[in-house]
Amino acid sequence: MSKLVSRRHFTIEWGHCDPAGIALNSRFFEFFDWGTWTLFTAALGVNPPDLAASYGIMGIPLVDAGATFIAPARFGDAVELTSRVSEFRRSSFDVAHQLLIGGAVAVEGRETRVWAGRDPGDPSVIRSRPIPSEVMARFDVP
Amino acid sequence: MSKLVSRRHFTIEWGHCDPAGIALNSRFFEFFDWGTWTLFTAALGVNPPDLAASYGIMGIPLVDAGATFIAPARFGDAVELTSRVSEFRRSSFDVAHQLLIGGAVAVEGRETRVWAGRDPGDPSVIRSRPIPSEVMARFDVP
Amino acid sequence: MSKLVSRRHFTIEWGHCDPAGIALNSRFFEFFDWGTWTLFTAALGVNPPDLAASYGIMGIPLVDAGATFIAPARFGDAVELTSRVSEFRRSSFDVAHQLLIGGAVAVEGRETRVWAGRDPGDPSVIRSRPIPSEVMARFDVP
Amino acid sequence: MSKLVSRRHFTIEWGHCDPAGIALNSRFFEFFDWGTWTLFTAALGVNPPDLAASYGIMGIPLVDAGATFIAPARFGDAVELTSRVSEFRRSSFDVAHQLLIGGAVAVEGRETRVWAGRDPGDPSVIRSRPIPSEVMARFDVP
Repeated sequence: MSKLVSRRHFTIEWGHCDPAGIALNSRFFEFFDWGTWTLFTAALGVNPPDLAASYGIMGIPLVDAGATFIAPARFGDAVELTSRVSEFRRSSFDVAHQLLIGGAVAVEGRETRVWAGRDPGDPSVIRSRPIPSEVMARFDVP
Repeated sequence: MSKLVSRRHFTIEWGHCDPAGIALNSRFFEFFDWGTWTLFTAALGVNPPDLAASYGIMGIPLVDAGATFIAPARFGDAVELTSRVSEFRRSSFDVAHQLLIGGAVAVEGRETRVWAGRDPGDPSVIRSRPIPSEVMARFDVP
Repeated sequence: MSKLVSRRHFTIEWGHCDPAGIALNSRFFEFFDWGTWTLFTAALGVNPPDLAASYGIMGIPLVDAGATFIAPARFGDAVELTSRVSEFRRSSFDVAHQLLIGGAVAVEGRETRVWAGRDPGDPSVIRSRPIPSEVMARFDVP
Repeated sequence: MSKLVSRRHFTIEWGHCDPAGIALNSRFFEFFDWGTWTLFTAALGVNPPDLAASYGIMGIPLVDAGATFIAPARFGDAVELTSRVSEFRRSSFDVAHQLLIGGAVAVEGRETRVWAGRDPGDPSVIRSRPIPSEVMARFDVP
């Protein structure tokens, strides 16, 4: 688990909620995506739209995502989202998210993403690339 | 009002609805966007992703949108969305949408879009372009 | 135009943006909804989920919405959303929204909403109700 | 794996896609939710909004969800979504989804849901309930 943790604070809005009055499950995957961008911005010091160009990649596409819904998030709830890298591998990595309401974990999220570039021979083909060690190092700075 | 009308049929889903149990207003603007693409596909005979390349434009960006909500659309409702061009001008046009439930109009939508291309001198600049007369002609075929 | 203006600051996220790299039009209608709730919270001092119960209404449903898109909102843009009531009528009101990027107006939004309650004789029927004068008064406090 | 499989056919829309031109990950979780409702409608013969009342439950809330993204879904792609119950337990069940493009699996989805009712002593408390055997039986009819 990386030491660097990013935190975001926001509110569950009317438009996030479904007829049961709780945030729709798909919204949490949007929130996790926000969290990953926030984490990478904090770690690497580049604005999100500049990440790809700064590192010569096409992006950090998602290959797996999941969530465990422990308690509902309701309209008006103030939430804290924490995000950190739980594991770096050669060319992919996992991000662990926690959405807290009143200090208790309401939703746990997990993402697996790839450090990906375009194939020089055929730019329509996306290929994983080794994650630079200096990138990994930036996530361990608390 | 152009003669060509496109129709789509779909269902109001759980995830479209808010805590009042009715489709969230922003969803209708997504539906109108679907309707415009369907209409252009029907008129021009090109797949949506090929529209820009086929006509040498960057797209048909929206400059104004509006909706009047007459009756609620509820979870499970079967809806029909009709879309037609209500006016062509030199380089912009209006699309009129109606969302019908049980044959009655529940929501009226309106979009103003621009036939737009990139400035040859500076591709980051988007400029309106004259709508080809053969494009307009395709919308009057019933 | 009421004196009370609410302001929200947020970022355009990856998930807000479409293949053109700009925020999808439907997202702005979500943002306007956020703005109206923020404005009512600031004016009336009740949490959004408590608004209906506090005032004996079922809510403030939208009957008309519109937006004018002046400049694109791109991934990573820091935006300020301002919201104020532009007109109170007997039982309906208009909210004017401005989404600013770098201090310039990128999107203008407008909503017409109804102060609505359930019919005592048939709770499935929603009826407009006179807006209490003390509610209107709260929006003029700067 | 239950024998009953529901199928939905729809198109990846402009508004489903992100700046990379592919459907945003959170959208697939909406699609899976659509699939589960379609499956339950097919199995139980009740309209989605009537499911809860017909079975004396409050709903089938999600407690876990996940997806594996194998190939991108692009603007204009025609997709088929298949959904089936992969396992019934006493009071919870898993739904397996596959999103196919051109006959190949692009995304695999999984949901765990609970057959849930309100506590008779405190309706604000949601409790799992045993899934009726006649409900389970309906999913094995091909």
